[in-house]
Amino acid sequence: MSNRMWGGRFASGPAEIMEEINASIGFDKRLAPQDIRGSLAHVAMLGKTGILPQADVAAIQAGLKTVQAEIESGAFTFARSLEDIHMNVESRLREIVGPAAGRLHTARSRNDQVATDMRLWVRDTLDELDAQAADLQRALAETALKHAGTVMPGFTHLQSAQPVTFGHHLLAYVEMLARDRGRFRDARARLNECPLGAAALAGTSFPIDRHATAAALGFDRPTANSLDSVADRDFALEALSAAAIAAVHLSRFAEEIVIWTSAQFGFVKLSDRFTTGSSIMPQKRNPDAAELVRAKAGRVIGALSGLLIVMKGLPLAYSKDMQEDKEGTFDALQTLSLCLAAMAGMVRDLEPVPEMLKAAAGSGYATATDLADWLVRELGLPFRDAHHVTGRLVGVAAARGVGLEALSLAEMQAEEPRITAAVYDVLGVENSVASRTSYGGTAPANVRAQAERWLKALSETK
Amino acid sequence: MSNRMWGGRFASGPAEIMEEINASIGFDKRLAPQDIRGSLAHVAMLGKTGILPQADVAAIQAGLKTVQAEIESGAFTFARSLEDIHMNVESRLREIVGPAAGRLHTARSRNDQVATDMRLWVRDTLDELDAQAADLQRALAETALKHAGTVMPGFTHLQSAQPVTFGHHLLAYVEMLARDRGRFRDARARLNECPLGAAALAGTSFPIDRHATAAALGFDRPTANSLDSVADRDFALEALSAAAIAAVHLSRFAEEIVIWTSAQFGFVKLSDRFTTGSSIMPQKRNPDAAELVRAKAGRVIGALSGLLIVMKGLPLAYSKDMQEDKEGTFDALQTLSLCLAAMAGMVRDLEPVPEMLKAAAGSGYATATDLADWLVRELGLPFRDAHHVTGRLVGVAAARGVGLEALSLAEMQAEEPRITAAVYDVLGVENSVASRTSYGGTAPANVRAQAERWLKALSETK
Amino acid sequence: MSNRMWGGRFASGPAEIMEEINASIGFDKRLAPQDIRGSLAHVAMLGKTGILPQADVAAIQAGLKTVQAEIESGAFTFARSLEDIHMNVESRLREIVGPAAGRLHTARSRNDQVATDMRLWVRDTLDELDAQAADLQRALAETALKHAGTVMPGFTHLQSAQPVTFGHHLLAYVEMLARDRGRFRDARARLNECPLGAAALAGTSFPIDRHATAAALGFDRPTANSLDSVADRDFALEALSAAAIAAVHLSRFAEEIVIWTSAQFGFVKLSDRFTTGSSIMPQKRNPDAAELVRAKAGRVIGALSGLLIVMKGLPLAYSKDMQEDKEGTFDALQTLSLCLAAMAGMVRDLEPVPEMLKAAAGSGYATATDLADWLVRELGLPFRDAHHVTGRLVGVAAARGVGLEALSLAEMQAEEPRITAAVYDVLGVENSVASRTSYGGTAPANVRAQAERWLKALSETK
Amino acid sequence: MSNRMWGGRFASGPAEIMEEINASIGFDKRLAPQDIRGSLAHVAMLGKTGILPQADVAAIQAGLKTVQAEIESGAFTFARSLEDIHMNVESRLREIVGPAAGRLHTARSRNDQVATDMRLWVRDTLDELDAQAADLQRALAETALKHAGTVMPGFTHLQSAQPVTFGHHLLAYVEMLARDRGRFRDARARLNECPLGAAALAGTSFPIDRHATAAALGFDRPTANSLDSVADRDFALEALSAAAIAAVHLSRFAEEIVIWTSAQFGFVKLSDRFTTGSSIMPQKRNPDAAELVRAKAGRVIGALSGLLIVMKGLPLAYSKDMQEDKEGTFDALQTLSLCLAAMAGMVRDLEPVPEMLKAAAGSGYATATDLADWLVRELGLPFRDAHHVTGRLVGVAAARGVGLEALSLAEMQAEEPRITAAVYDVLGVENSVASRTSYGGTAPANVRAQAERWLKALSETK
Repeated sequence: MSNRMWGGRFASGPAEIMEEINASIGFDKRLAPQDIRGSLAHVAMLGKTGILPQADVAAIQAGLKTVQAEIESGAFTFARSLEDIHMNVESRLREIVGPAAGRLHTARSRNDQVATDMRLWVRDTLDELDAQAADLQRALAETALKHAGTVMPGFTHLQSAQPVTFGHHLLAYVEMLARDRGRFRDARARLNECPLGAAALAGTSFPIDRHATAAALGFDRPTANSLDSVADRDFALEALSAAAIAAVHLSRFAEEIVIWTSAQFGFVKLSDRFTTGSSIMPQKRNPDAAELVRAKAGRVIGALSGLLIVMKGLPLAYSKDMQEDKEGTFDALQTLSLCLAAMAGMVRDLEPVPEMLKAAAGSGYATATDLADWLVRELGLPFRDAHHVTGRLVGVAAARGVGLEALSLAEMQAEEPRITAAVYDVLGVENSVASRTSYGGTAPANVRAQAERWLKALSETK
Repeated sequence: MSNRMWGGRFASGPAEIMEEINASIGFDKRLAPQDIRGSLAHVAMLGKTGILPQADVAAIQAGLKTVQAEIESGAFTFARSLEDIHMNVESRLREIVGPAAGRLHTARSRNDQVATDMRLWVRDTLDELDAQAADLQRALAETALKHAGTVMPGFTHLQSAQPVTFGHHLLAYVEMLARDRGRFRDARARLNECPLGAAALAGTSFPIDRHATAAALGFDRPTANSLDSVADRDFALEALSAAAIAAVHLSRFAEEIVIWTSAQFGFVKLSDRFTTGSSIMPQKRNPDAAELVRAKAGRVIGALSGLLIVMKGLPLAYSKDMQEDKEGTFDALQTLSLCLAAMAGMVRDLEPVPEMLKAAAGSGYATATDLADWLVRELGLPFRDAHHVTGRLVGVAAARGVGLEALSLAEMQAEEPRITAAVYDVLGVENSVASRTSYGGTAPANVRAQAERWLKALSETK
Repeated sequence: MSNRMWGGRFASGPAEIMEEINASIGFDKRLAPQDIRGSLAHVAMLGKTGILPQADVAAIQAGLKTVQAEIESGAFTFARSLEDIHMNVESRLREIVGPAAGRLHTARSRNDQVATDMRLWVRDTLDELDAQAADLQRALAETALKHAGTVMPGFTHLQSAQPVTFGHHLLAYVEMLARDRGRFRDARARLNECPLGAAALAGTSFPIDRHATAAALGFDRPTANSLDSVADRDFALEALSAAAIAAVHLSRFAEEIVIWTSAQFGFVKLSDRFTTGSSIMPQKRNPDAAELVRAKAGRVIGALSGLLIVMKGLPLAYSKDMQEDKEGTFDALQTLSLCLAAMAGMVRDLEPVPEMLKAAAGSGYATATDLADWLVRELGLPFRDAHHVTGRLVGVAAARGVGLEALSLAEMQAEEPRITAAVYDVLGVENSVASRTSYGGTAPANVRAQAERWLKALSETK
Repeated sequence: MSNRMWGGRFASGPAEIMEEINASIGFDKRLAPQDIRGSLAHVAMLGKTGILPQADVAAIQAGLKTVQAEIESGAFTFARSLEDIHMNVESRLREIVGPAAGRLHTARSRNDQVATDMRLWVRDTLDELDAQAADLQRALAETALKHAGTVMPGFTHLQSAQPVTFGHHLLAYVEMLARDRGRFRDARARLNECPLGAAALAGTSFPIDRHATAAALGFDRPTANSLDSVADRDFALEALSAAAIAAVHLSRFAEEIVIWTSAQFGFVKLSDRFTTGSSIMPQKRNPDAAELVRAKAGRVIGALSGLLIVMKGLPLAYSKDMQEDKEGTFDALQTLSLCLAAMAGMVRDLEPVPEMLKAAAGSGYATATDLADWLVRELGLPFRDAHHVTGRLVGVAAARGVGLEALSLAEMQAEEPRITAAVYDVLGVENSVASRTSYGGTAPANVRAQAERWLKALSETK
């Protein structure tokens, strides 16, 4: 079979294909710390309950610590023939400890062991993502505070609609990240039940103490159904869902950075640290990091889809299909981690260009709504009528090629005689944003208060 | 342009194409109840804050109720030229109330209006899904209680591994649904902030009371950032994520029903009510409903992907892309609702066939693990050694074509002299399941206790 | 069961749920023309082969035509209790023709019937999409020809890189659409085998002539394996794949239209016909149609994912899951049809703004590469060295705030003494684009030739 | 920044994050062979056209071959600071060749270079997948020929419907693979245009000969539009689409293997080579390879979704987002390659169990359709009436607990007096399958002919 035109990748026949498709050690070795933590908790419990004699327990514990040290130092040799991390660790333990190593697997199976390892890994990673998202919130809120009054256009349809402040815009992402963090925490709380002790699928007849192992590993409680414990991958699916939504949030800001750093917008500048340049066009700053953050949402969504597909229609309890939970989950959550770090770096790096932002904010009759609202508020016009008057005044200004504030009072009164000079107060972009004092509105005082609220909350929780 | 070969679908030119792609009334009319609820709350607040005179408020409220009645009775005529539900309602309101109708839109925009409508719809639907999932849990727990001791094979890789009970198997789904319900509730709590008053995107200069409208609509609080309020569709994404995971759970049970109702398994029977038959093969029962529940997970996952893709890379605040949030969300959540109802019906309908289940549970040396555990527990063999002894004994039995329980004590002792007659206690499937008393294990007493715990909890919350 | 809190949707119990989940007439009635076409071909073949007497054939043919007329006129009443389009048609046929109607189903089953109907529908729709894509190519090539020499910036990373022409940019989409059309045609060719006669799954013992029905329905041949014929949905999956890629192409151009119509870019203008406005900001043109085309790619990708998921892991031959092939396929292909029509309308509607395009093309030292190439070509510098010289010259110009063409020859020679006045020929954007004469390059003569080649090809095939 | 709780992964600040997110050498080094092939073709053309002197050409060619040898031998050191494979190769080339290396990049850019590399890689891989799919077809057709007459149940809804033969079932997959191969080949033909010479995006002013490089690299022609050349990733998307559909096909057979190897079905046996066992349950054969093939369809679909999402809404020409095309494409196509190899191994390994298959085929009145067809064909009953008579006869048999063939002629005639003894000929499963002689039907003679046709075609093309 070795001279196949497709390159002899599987030259030595079925056995090799089977090993290649079946072995997981190439990717699950990253679970080594979790695997050893789980084993230490399990063997301690076997000792406390009298299932194993203390001598065996002590020997196994010492052996596991040796294995751990070997892995951390890079001295450990992983063997694909031993398939997975569990067998690699156990095999080395046996070399160190001798036959007593065989007692570690009492009242346990690879099914509950791997479920425990993965839950621990996802839990650790959710904690890390939560901290990173908080760090990004902090970067955003700090910049928002600095730019609470920096006027910029608020867009709908990428068309300037009403002026807002740069700080207000950044705080929108702080809110999104707050929901992301809420999802990370809810996912963490929901997954924090320990499957260890479910054994292969039915539980065990040994007098184990699942509450003890659960507590030792920081779980809130043991899982309540042994079949569900080994058949469930909700914890990965929920973490991936939360990650996908967060990645979409980041992709939105990334798109804005790409657009804002274009020559045509010129709203913000990124330094060399987050751009790549051209040796012949020194003014060129390609926002590569932003583009990659934007793109990587696709990868995270793909991983979520992938695992949902794997789990769909799978009968209980364990099927080998579930080994496919690992690579996608590892990759997607670490991709999000990288994106959060890159985005925090970019937020700290980027410099808004206030003059460009303000000029853009004032163009396009962005305060027409302010005028209409003034007509409603001060003259009592119904909203729809005020709309029409405003439209006619904008038409007059546009015909003259000027802004609304350049119309004379007489011109104004020609359309609506009751208009007074007070109207000019609402036509400047600074006045416009200052007037949006409704809760959650863009008035700089609001923005400042929200930014401070967030910075206080973030300093307390960190 | 009318005689194009592609059939003149857009015969009257660009205007018609634009209307066809742009109008949403075909699907957003389902938001009519939410839209009117929101308008009633908004106008009441405009009155209380003195922004509108009470006479206008009263007229608008009466008018909105007339519109509502017309829609409920089917008398309302929706016009595609009015684009969406908001303009359809407002236009009719103007016919009824006259120009005062134009005051309803004071301090509001379609952007915050539609965000409010969709949140209300998703919130209502999440509540419905939670109740339906609880109903399915009840159906499962009731059947589980009845079959707490009905022995069946526990599968891994669709190969019989260890005996479990039918009730235990069903309770695995009760656990999954509990997590689904937790996700529905977390999503509901997170979305329960009111965007009304964010206006187009910047907030408003009118002295509105957003806390009042939020409270009137049952929201916990107003949203904190006006840009985020109109740009965010997290509430739909999170609901779709939770729905996708739940749909995957249902698809797993659906697959089991399809397999279990095959002639080869014969584990359960479904009545005519959930099967389709054949006029010439009367014994044939096609589990159509189960197959459709299995398939529809694909549709829900597709809708989740679809909306994540729409939102990816979208700059703030509102873009028309976001109109694509509706059809997928409506369809996916209602698909899940239908699947939950169908599954509850099937659970109440299905009849396990205990003799088939028990026979299958006992075949394939499914109690070999019990024997190995006995050797560990009673004779102190290391687990891996016990495994080897058991393997040899199974080999002896297999060579004779009998079960383990048919081996004589002498045959047993030939492999391991310390084995005593007490070993036979663990070799029957009834004894096997009875012995799995670890927390979460399949022992009938455990299963009964868990089923009762669930039924109590479900009766309290309902 | 009727007073459930979740609204009594399934109030009358299991039977109603089953009907709701099972019936497909709500969406498969759109297959009526295909269903009747298939039946007419089938019964004609049954007559020709002598399986049915001519009298029955004639009666059934007349009856089917009556049914067809009733459906076309809207007089036909579809009944959900009859489940699907096949039973609705047959049932009405029986009312018209009497018991002879029962002979139509000889040597046929719903499994091969629905597979035939769907193939016909997908084939018709692929033909329509091909024609629409050709129409869009035509619109693009016509505009490209007009603007073969209209200079604009060529972007990488949304940063101006090198000048190109507007026509060249549009022709990039003509190429993409050519590949899309190639995929539509390949999909059509591959699906064009007739499953009729595969019966339920095993073929039939009647002496049918499958080649005759295949030919009558415009298929190239009958399918070669009866199980595959009823179990396969490749034709829908492949059409959806091609549609998803095409939708992505359209979304890219849609994104460009959104960016180009922003006030900051101002590269193109869309008329009222493809924008929505604001009654108070008359200059505002929201590119709604472009945004929707961009968004709808998400929907098509979601439908593709959805059907791949449905088919994954499905045992042969027919399972009810496959009924889920319809709604997603119908919706996605028609969505693409709408997007193609909207995009063709927008292309014909949009007006480039040459002065904005040219000004943008010349900014940012976009001809620096031309300078570097001149140094390589004329002075023989290695490319990387030429790069460095150019970088230094750009630095000099940037320090003075001028373009490269404003540097004096002395300034040039200070960096590289061999530079001659001939260098100025390559520094203007017009000269830059004119120089890109390599095959496929942006030189206006190239663009004109490519546009003419396409228009000729399109006029021939249409 | 180094003592962050999230572990200091990006401890040294922004520069490191940027490098981590930006560098692609970790995965694009696999493009080394393609990159060097492309450079060799490019430099040869630069020589032939006189753009470079032959001395430089010769030096660069020799240098590239040295680099190639170093990479093949493992002596090459890849540096992340050099970002990607292109810069790694060029940097080493400069060490070997000196400044002349700088001339290699004349009239080329990384944009057209990477597009060329990826097309070559995808093209090579499509060829490999085509060969592997052909090998799997061969394995299936060989087994099909052997079992052209081995009767088994044909399933719909996983319920036995009509008898078919094992060979017929396998040939359904041969048909699916034929379509998969058609898609691979169409994708290959469509991608087989050379982007080299498009340069950064606009083409070049050097007098290059793109037809020459295209021919040298085995492309059919150069691409026709330089923007499209560097902005397009259709070739990856189309390859992934074809791969996803193929992976779904394999997942279906994988599911069948899982079901068929269950104790309850017992239809086929897999040897140790494609199963994993249990040391204590020696009869247990977990079909791990089949489960993984089933699962991995999810991964391939996820990769397809991921790349569609990345490309959606991306403005022309090159954006860094497109770097995300690589990992998913590499992984997905190699995953499919592994699945094809594993499936070919399993097909060659699996042993059908004819007695189980036949017993299952005969149960459940699977020949009822044959009886109905006989009534139509021999007695002229309308199909629907024949159906009813058959239903009643099955009812009689079922009441007695026997098969149809066990009914006496008198019993038959009690339901329909015209029935003759000839009816018994159609009631056995062997007769049933033998009677399905319609084109594509399951009659053993048909199956044999089809298998032979395939084996002949496969031997010719290989």
